Amino acid sequence: MKLGELETPALLLDADRMAANVTRMRSRMAALGVTLRPHLKTCKSADVARRLFDGATGPVTVSTLKEAEHFLDNGFTDIIYAVGITPGKLEHASRLRERGADLKLLLDNLDAARAVAAHAARRGNLPTLIEIDSDGHRAGVAPEGADLLAIGHCLAAANCLAGVLTHAGASYDCRSVAAIRAMAEQERARTVRAALRLREAGLPCEIVSVGSSPTATYAERLDGVTEVRAGVYVFFDLVMAGIEVCRVEDIALSVLATVIGHQRERGWIITDAGWMAMSRDRGTAKQPVDQGYGLVCDAAGQRLPDLVMIDANQEHGIVAHRSGQPQHTPLLPVGTLLRILPNHACATGAQHDRYHVVRGASDSVEVVWPRFSGW
Amino acid sequence: MKLGELETPALLLDADRMAANVTRMRSRMAALGVTLRPHLKTCKSADVARRLFDGATGPVTVSTLKEAEHFLDNGFTDIIYAVGITPGKLEHASRLRERGADLKLLLDNLDAARAVAAHAARRGNLPTLIEIDSDGHRAGVAPEGADLLAIGHCLAAANCLAGVLTHAGASYDCRSVAAIRAMAEQERARTVRAALRLREAGLPCEIVSVGSSPTATYAERLDGVTEVRAGVYVFFDLVMAGIEVCRVEDIALSVLATVIGHQRERGWIITDAGWMAMSRDRGTAKQPVDQGYGLVCDAAGQRLPDLVMIDANQEHGIVAHRSGQPQHTPLLPVGTLLRILPNHACATGAQHDRYHVVRGASDSVEVVWPRFSGW
Repeated sequence: MKLGELETPALLLDADRMAANVTRMRSRMAALGVTLRPHLKTCKSADVARRLFDGATGPVTVSTLKEAEHFLDNGFTDIIYAVGITPGKLEHASRLRERGADLKLLLDNLDAARAVAAHAARRGNLPTLIEIDSDGHRAGVAPEGADLLAIGHCLAAANCLAGVLTHAGASYDCRSVAAIRAMAEQERARTVRAALRLREAGLPCEIVSVGSSPTATYAERLDGVTEVRAGVYVFFDLVMAGIEVCRVEDIALSVLATVIGHQRERGWIITDAGWMAMSRDRGTAKQPVDQGYGLVCDAAGQRLPDLVMIDANQEHGIVAHRSGQPQHTPLLPVGTLLRILPNHACATGAQHDRYHVVRGASDSVEVVWPRFSGW
Repeated sequence: MKLGELETPALLLDADRMAANVTRMRSRMAALGVTLRPHLKTCKSADVARRLFDGATGPVTVSTLKEAEHFLDNGFTDIIYAVGITPGKLEHASRLRERGADLKLLLDNLDAARAVAAHAARRGNLPTLIEIDSDGHRAGVAPEGADLLAIGHCLAAANCLAGVLTHAGASYDCRSVAAIRAMAEQERARTVRAALRLREAGLPCEIVSVGSSPTATYAERLDGVTEVRAGVYVFFDLVMAGIEVCRVEDIALSVLATVIGHQRERGWIITDAGWMAMSRDRGTAKQPVDQGYGLVCDAAGQRLPDLVMIDANQEHGIVAHRSGQPQHTPLLPVGTLLRILPNHACATGAQHDRYHVVRGASDSVEVVWPRFSGW
């Protein structure tokens, strides 16, 4: 099938760019001597997941039990569910383990730890990681606090303590490579410190898991870390390009759109890819260069200089010259195909139910890979 | 099934609130003497759509050909596809008409009109509306411009001219009821003027279609208009409440979330409903009262005073007191269920594949209605 035969909007995945991104991260992690545990919340596709391990089924991270279910069905058994567990989800977790998943849970409080311990006593082992707050960004216990040991003792008494895990989400807000390097070292040091405190208290801590695509890309040493999680690196996006974690040319995901009209006096090109196709993610809005809802390329993936998707309705996109000067927008004819690079691969991917796999500037769709969403 | 048995996050739909919203709008349109043509891009559900017509199948609006396909399969035949058509979608449109859809298309430029005329000559009639720009918001031709008549003549020569259509999207940016009333009159006057110009030129203009939930709610007269389109009114949301188009108590859609932890010093409650469940829509950010990612209610739908979802990661929500003062946040226990009211019903709904239908404060799920997405 040719691109021109697709009904737009449609999600495109450049397999060459993805393969390069995947190889680069695998080499980095191998050189640093740690296991790479990709986060599949970005791709939500078994076809993509297999390509992260050269066709094999390695250790993975998921953000929902539906993802765990889906990837288990596709042969991935070593799974961390990296969102704090609630009592209401423990039975589902046990069922997944009974079906063969080496599923590991996450929590950061004593109430959840007690629920895990009680559940494990009835339904069998539930290996669980303690979430560490390494950057003040979201969840997790302080590496130096009392909660860490209290939770550790509670889980260990039930034979459920598997290790520690952090996510340096604040790395997305770094504004230089030096700042990301420093954040990577902070993430490493605080998480390794938490592991050390558990071990000093006589508790087991087999897994020391860190990660985010920025810190994984720039970490200089990972002593004491056993594994790194990252998801966006597979596709990359404009937010990552904006903080120098990738180049714009590395972005493997785009949305194919069609020009449906113009507002000449305003210098607007109207397309059929709105926020439903791109997502409402405006992650570059707080970066030095705001990319609107996305950067605009031609159908072959070549950037059209300074053309940006400046606004979006549900099924309408507005493309214009970055300067805001109407005379600078080329009034591409109705029917013209465009590829729009997204702010955030996880969010844009989630709006679609399949990948149309292409390679570089080719106008052929090589294969279609399904992707899923929901809970 | 009880709410406590749902795996969160989950989309809830309060059937009582929806029924009241639907009845109110139907009565308004009947009193104003116009046809109501609901926009099904908000609900994307045949179960909801039937309830907009007391179980019958009335005239509807869609934003994708997939919606047209789906609602045709469910007995809705009178359909306007209200996004500018491109040549690449004409064959699909013809197939839908062959299957029994009275499908009407939309366009705002001569290139598309010529493509429609040529296609209709080969494949049969394609009734088409001319999009009018009534507010400078998005697409459409000027009601007083030369393009209107040129397009009109082109379509009429091919026997394809069905009327005019506008969407006063700028009504979302109104900041008072008086401003919305004025916008409704502007929308009406400019679109009726366009219809008049076509008729004065000897061209047919059967349909005069206007609409948006704000202007539909506050229009005082609709002389010359034949039908009104609106979608969000079925569910309503915080953006609509923020411009007095509804009350917060009218919002029928919410996301059920579970507390998974806390950051006590920061006054944060962490939940398992992130932006994947709420969408990235931050429509209230530019309103006088910014509601973050949503307003927080208890499991029975009662608002928890000043609790707002202040931030979101993919599968994590951060809930806190609006004041930002940590001591004001009630540290609801891990496992607590919350209902979060969304900024934008269309965007939040699109993140889910089903509605769990509830009534008021009841903790029972009455029925589950599937919803679809994608293209």
